[in-house]
Amino acid sequence: MIGIFDSGLGGLTVVRAIMDRLPGYDIVYFGDTARMPYGSKSPRTVVDYARQDSMLLIRKGARLVLMACNTASSVAFEPIARRLETPVFEVVTPAVETALQCSRNQRIGVIGTRATIGSAVYERKIKNRQPDAAVYSVACPLLVPLVEEGWLRKPETKTIVKKYLTPLKNRQIDTLVLGCTHYPILKHIVQHKIGKQINVIDSSLAVAEKLAAYLTDQPSLLHALPQTGRVRLLVSDITPQFESMAQMLLQQKVELEQVRLPVDL
Amino acid sequence: MIGIFDSGLGGLTVVRAIMDRLPGYDIVYFGDTARMPYGSKSPRTVVDYARQDSMLLIRKGARLVLMACNTASSVAFEPIARRLETPVFEVVTPAVETALQCSRNQRIGVIGTRATIGSAVYERKIKNRQPDAAVYSVACPLLVPLVEEGWLRKPETKTIVKKYLTPLKNRQIDTLVLGCTHYPILKHIVQHKIGKQINVIDSSLAVAEKLAAYLTDQPSLLHALPQTGRVRLLVSDITPQFESMAQMLLQQKVELEQVRLPVDL
Repeated sequence: MIGIFDSGLGGLTVVRAIMDRLPGYDIVYFGDTARMPYGSKSPRTVVDYARQDSMLLIRKGARLVLMACNTASSVAFEPIARRLETPVFEVVTPAVETALQCSRNQRIGVIGTRATIGSAVYERKIKNRQPDAAVYSVACPLLVPLVEEGWLRKPETKTIVKKYLTPLKNRQIDTLVLGCTHYPILKHIVQHKIGKQINVIDSSLAVAEKLAAYLTDQPSLLHALPQTGRVRLLVSDITPQFESMAQMLLQQKVELEQVRLPVDL
Repeated sequence: MIGIFDSGLGGLTVVRAIMDRLPGYDIVYFGDTARMPYGSKSPRTVVDYARQDSMLLIRKGARLVLMACNTASSVAFEPIARRLETPVFEVVTPAVETALQCSRNQRIGVIGTRATIGSAVYERKIKNRQPDAAVYSVACPLLVPLVEEGWLRKPETKTIVKKYLTPLKNRQIDTLVLGCTHYPILKHIVQHKIGKQINVIDSSLAVAEKLAAYLTDQPSLLHALPQTGRVRLLVSDITPQFESMAQMLLQQKVELEQVRLPVDL
């Protein structure tokens, strides 16, 4: 199975993209709803949580683990990938590569959680590939709670998005990276507030593409993956918000299974 | 020691009141910042967390435990108080009693987290004491993230408070209970938006009063409590926001100690 985790429901945007790009392959998703959000917590705590989440997916049968959470990808990918034998994927690099392909003027904005922006991982990865690039980052810590609450079209959400984007408006960026898997759910607002001439990068398609390319190179792993089309959704806490949002994002009836963390590990 | 816990920093409003009412008595506080917020999580998860938090405080030397969190008080007080030998206090009852004392027309509004409002504990406790009272409750799930972010005077916070209070505006309430220990930090906005003729009830003073009365009746416990004036602040995750807000609320330099949950238990 393809294992995917996030702090909450944001990673379901990645599940949707994987279902489209690799149809029929079984997926096991874990949303750590009992401890979400991750983005306001310290790197040490996020590393602990991401390690537990990865182990949980492996025990549930995952043959590879995708961190569909920018916060975990930013601060926990290296310590975890180094220790696990199971292949681990993260969402930052595909977003960076897509942004550099799209940008004409190499002036790139990045929005993310406090932990992601604090890690400066986007800036580092962009400048490694393109030393002349200018990167402008803004932490937007309230956007995850707004999405988890389902405030997707409220005027208050629009004014908060606008406030966060203001420092990017006069930087002449031509590309803006949604550096959090929750943010594609607000893409319509972000695109409207930043301006329709700006490329707004949702990394989920690039992540799915990267995973598909990896599996093409690893045919023995690819053939070992079950293909019954099953998508299991595990959560550490069952809440009505998660269920309704999952149904909206995956466009199918969902059934949640509760796991207890870290007691089950 | 007097043990006090909350999901995050809201309970520090209660610490402040206890320090004023019972000066010199040692306090050990636990803020579960690695798993906050509680108010959007399910009752079962909140009961588990509140039990772990109570046990942690007892192991650290608490002789009584005060749940300075309305969510925990609402859904977890009964199962936990029933099992522990240590006296356990909650914050809902003192708020209810104060509200009934203040209200002239017995039309009372309550704001709180989704879990607190969903439990209907305020309505039940008010109607037990005053069957004719009318209680109007509104869940305000974004206020805790706004406080934890330190957005205490931003226009977006004001418009969100206003939106939450709108359904209460034409109910002819004369009293509004702040049913979450984070909300006193936004009291200036709430009072402004609901109108200056409305009693806005911050339960922290009433809680401190209740605790002092209990201790007066239990002189052996009172005399067993250390009085070195020490306030220990334990957190499950150290973040800069918690530190600066704690300094502001307690008006003294603070030092945070990190505990690991539930591994330490």
